[in-house]
Amino acid sequence: MPVHQRADARRNYARILAVAEDEVAAHGADASLEQIARITGVGSATVRRHFPTRRALLEAVSRKRIEALCVRAHELASTSDSRNALVEWLGDVVSYCVSARGLAAALTYDGAESVQMHENTCSAALEEAAGPLLHRAVQDGAVAAGVTVADLITLTVGIVLATEHYPDFGAQAHRLFRLAVTGLSPQS
Amino acid sequence: MPVHQRADARRNYARILAVAEDEVAAHGADASLEQIARITGVGSATVRRHFPTRRALLEAVSRKRIEALCVRAHELASTSDSRNALVEWLGDVVSYCVSARGLAAALTYDGAESVQMHENTCSAALEEAAGPLLHRAVQDGAVAAGVTVADLITLTVGIVLATEHYPDFGAQAHRLFRLAVTGLSPQS
Repeated sequence: MPVHQRADARRNYARILAVAEDEVAAHGADASLEQIARITGVGSATVRRHFPTRRALLEAVSRKRIEALCVRAHELASTSDSRNALVEWLGDVVSYCVSARGLAAALTYDGAESVQMHENTCSAALEEAAGPLLHRAVQDGAVAAGVTVADLITLTVGIVLATEHYPDFGAQAHRLFRLAVTGLSPQS
Repeated sequence: MPVHQRADARRNYARILAVAEDEVAAHGADASLEQIARITGVGSATVRRHFPTRRALLEAVSRKRIEALCVRAHELASTSDSRNALVEWLGDVVSYCVSARGLAAALTYDGAESVQMHENTCSAALEEAAGPLLHRAVQDGAVAAGVTVADLITLTVGIVLATEHYPDFGAQAHRLFRLAVTGLSPQS
């Protein structure tokens, strides 16, 4: 690709991403790709070339927040209580998903698409960052062996998705998250 | 409304519902209302008159399964172990949601719409049916006081929604459900 075309493509990408951030913030994960193309002033085909799937768009929109969650995981990995560290980090995942529309959808396992993109996605980064937190909690007996980072993120994101229409969304999401951490009925 | 118009309306309702059941089974909760109208051979306005919202349609499609879950709750209320009874019933909610597309969406709290329809919905019936199961489990100390039937259903449905794109959807949903029952990290 000639140099000026590459520069055009980069500018288009940046403009589409900026509009997508606004649209996802306003309308959530179902934001219209056609509307994003219209506001940016490009064709739908151009949007799809940069973001082949809705998931790719949501991951790009969520990238900074996912990176911040990775940084949090690294910070918490050096704190003393492994259980608290893991639960606090997952609580941060809840808070981030509550405050940033589209993030929960970007973290949801999405079938073949997720597997195919696994190598270079933000979700993969998140799994890698949280792995040591989980490993330490399992070693300390605070989490059952066999539980994966994907399990924890899936359960957390499921709680966010199921509570997002509650009038007190954030409070309800954190409440049910604490219930899942403690267990609906722990003694067995 | 004249008698023959009422009979027409009833026939239309039954035909639309039959088509809607097929379409939701094939395409899930996002089944196209326009497609349902087209197959039934009525206008979109007629579909919307009978089912003003997607939620109303999904609840109608799910009615028999929700009634069956109410019957299960009544049966389990007379078994001896209150914790087992509640967990088994919630496990049935998982199984039903896994096998019947659209049911999880019909059980998700949907904001004002749910509140407005609360008096006569299937969800209200489900809450009423499961109330005694939960009450008994709380009295026996198997579930924390303050937990509601809505909490349990929201958490269960969230797990189903977050796992539905996994290749082994049913197994994964039940696995995460058991994790939530026991607790991600029960000791606190």
